[in-house]
Amino acid sequence: MPVKALDALPPGSTIGILGGGQLGRMLAAAAARLGFHTHIYCPDAGGPAAEVAGTQTQAAYDDLEALHRFTKTCDVVTYEFENVPAMSARTAANAGLLRPNAKALDVAQDRLTEKTFIRDEAGVAVADFRAVDNIHDARRAVRHMGLPAVIKTRRFGYDGKGQAVIRAEADLETAFQSLPKDAPCIVEAFVPFRREVSIVAARGADGSHASYPLIENVHKNHILHTSTIPAPNTSAALSARAAELAFKIMDKLDYIGVMATEFFELEDGTLIVNEIAPRVHNSGHWTQDAGCVDQFELHIRAIAGWPLGSTVPLLDVVMTNLIGDDANKVTSLAALPGTFIHLYGKNEAREGRKMGHVNQVKLKT
Amino acid sequence: MPVKALDALPPGSTIGILGGGQLGRMLAAAAARLGFHTHIYCPDAGGPAAEVAGTQTQAAYDDLEALHRFTKTCDVVTYEFENVPAMSARTAANAGLLRPNAKALDVAQDRLTEKTFIRDEAGVAVADFRAVDNIHDARRAVRHMGLPAVIKTRRFGYDGKGQAVIRAEADLETAFQSLPKDAPCIVEAFVPFRREVSIVAARGADGSHASYPLIENVHKNHILHTSTIPAPNTSAALSARAAELAFKIMDKLDYIGVMATEFFELEDGTLIVNEIAPRVHNSGHWTQDAGCVDQFELHIRAIAGWPLGSTVPLLDVVMTNLIGDDANKVTSLAALPGTFIHLYGKNEAREGRKMGHVNQVKLKT
Repeated sequence: MPVKALDALPPGSTIGILGGGQLGRMLAAAAARLGFHTHIYCPDAGGPAAEVAGTQTQAAYDDLEALHRFTKTCDVVTYEFENVPAMSARTAANAGLLRPNAKALDVAQDRLTEKTFIRDEAGVAVADFRAVDNIHDARRAVRHMGLPAVIKTRRFGYDGKGQAVIRAEADLETAFQSLPKDAPCIVEAFVPFRREVSIVAARGADGSHASYPLIENVHKNHILHTSTIPAPNTSAALSARAAELAFKIMDKLDYIGVMATEFFELEDGTLIVNEIAPRVHNSGHWTQDAGCVDQFELHIRAIAGWPLGSTVPLLDVVMTNLIGDDANKVTSLAALPGTFIHLYGKNEAREGRKMGHVNQVKLKT
Repeated sequence: MPVKALDALPPGSTIGILGGGQLGRMLAAAAARLGFHTHIYCPDAGGPAAEVAGTQTQAAYDDLEALHRFTKTCDVVTYEFENVPAMSARTAANAGLLRPNAKALDVAQDRLTEKTFIRDEAGVAVADFRAVDNIHDARRAVRHMGLPAVIKTRRFGYDGKGQAVIRAEADLETAFQSLPKDAPCIVEAFVPFRREVSIVAARGADGSHASYPLIENVHKNHILHTSTIPAPNTSAALSARAAELAFKIMDKLDYIGVMATEFFELEDGTLIVNEIAPRVHNSGHWTQDAGCVDQFELHIRAIAGWPLGSTVPLLDVVMTNLIGDDANKVTSLAALPGTFIHLYGKNEAREGRKMGHVNQVKLKT
């Protein structure tokens, strides 16, 4: 279902957001700056996004009637996480209001569909992979592809959940049993990468492109720890090449909005796509304090049919996530010059939970 | 009534804001970034601030019961405009929660009290002034002080409303009649200024000081048009001298929060205080995109007992207000690099109404 051709939405229009977490919160804040109302749809009362949005519908994602009522109040509908049920998104898509489109959501929700699409339709390199539905498939796959390899559930994985590394064939049974029972999986060849980098880019309603420079990401316990801009020891050519790969994928999806593409960079500079996220992304949070249009506003501009604006950072930034108890130290962090605090308003600092982030800024040298 | 000694308020605390306009909106956005809840108190449904705040009490400013209920939900209460009735503020002040304190509000609400305080208690220069209650007083005042002079209502003036210039004694009657009937007034000597400048500064809960550099302001039809940072042709010494004058006033008021001080700069560099605003201020909006803690967050940090953080801008900025129909051109402004749009979510673009502002940024040279 194609999206309706929209003129630039005027201030005062309403942007619907499926999902009520921190990404929705920061999208709502950006939308308010541009004079838009926001309407959050999510099953939980309150929550990070609803706290700063004009309107909230609290209803289950499979409540079709609530979804219809919600969609009717919106001039455009977007989503803040890729695991929003396809059916929820379809109500908005059927009304011609969903940006990015349902195809982007379908592709990103399933690792098999995602990797197949990226390799075969967009023509962009991914690690070797095979669908596996049981341990026999998995054994065949690792024998064929070699070890080490990574086994992952096809759906609902995030922050390292739903995956296991296989270093020897003997690990296979334990690895398989650590995953949800009977979940369809894929086995991916392990990529001997030099580092993890990402591109956060937007495609406008008119097909225009904008990308921030290449971002270097460091993970801790499978959760993003820091994003650094500019990525150290990175040529402009590498950064441009990564952006081109992201644009190829976005063009093939007829994508509107911000999309993140995570890459492995090999020793020889080859870029292999690890995964895409059809939304604003944790590795783009540094944009809030870099002297350019931030990724949240960039997404809102794109889905509202506005000009994308400048994605060239004027300042250098290191973003560090505040996980669990890290959030307790914010008042001391607040004393450091050039330190910008962004908390998500979550009540409970559970272990491994993203509570906020800090952007440490310096003048470009 | 002294404010309660508060430790640094932890994220999750609630900040109450009396008033629901654009300053409240931007304060609420800053508070959310630091993980605070906000509770807006104002007589109007919806409005710029309530749209982005977690909670709103819609009640009249003289509804003491509603004010009590409101105050009980808050860990600290602040105000976003100086004409909030003293009684409304007193409920929060009596609970020891009002920041800045009621004294600051009293002083700023009445031009006579304000100028007397600044001159006699803080020892900072203001233009010569006299209280006038009728045309006979006014005639005596201008004969004594000389012409030109300006007659202003003591209370409720803003954006040039409630004032008239007197160039000849013959103007006096017309001038007096243009003002609200029987309103107590003052006559001020006209200051032959070179330009208008302002200082936006904060005083922390521990008495610490922070100030942005001197800001150059240009008005159009008595409404702020542009604020430029750094102020052109301005020595660091002049900027520091202006900040010291602001700090003197704030110290005398035992002030906590952000205060703006507007000055006339004379040809010889003398600084004369025009007025103070016990709140964040239109001439400080450029701070949102300058690579330092912005004035809204600075105010929240101060009233929450947090460290004030850095007020040194890393970028140069020109802020331009969007008045009335100016707001219609935002989508074309959005295409310009380095242009940051801030709209207030007001439905109706009436003539002379502040609809938003634009910050035009460049790297410091």
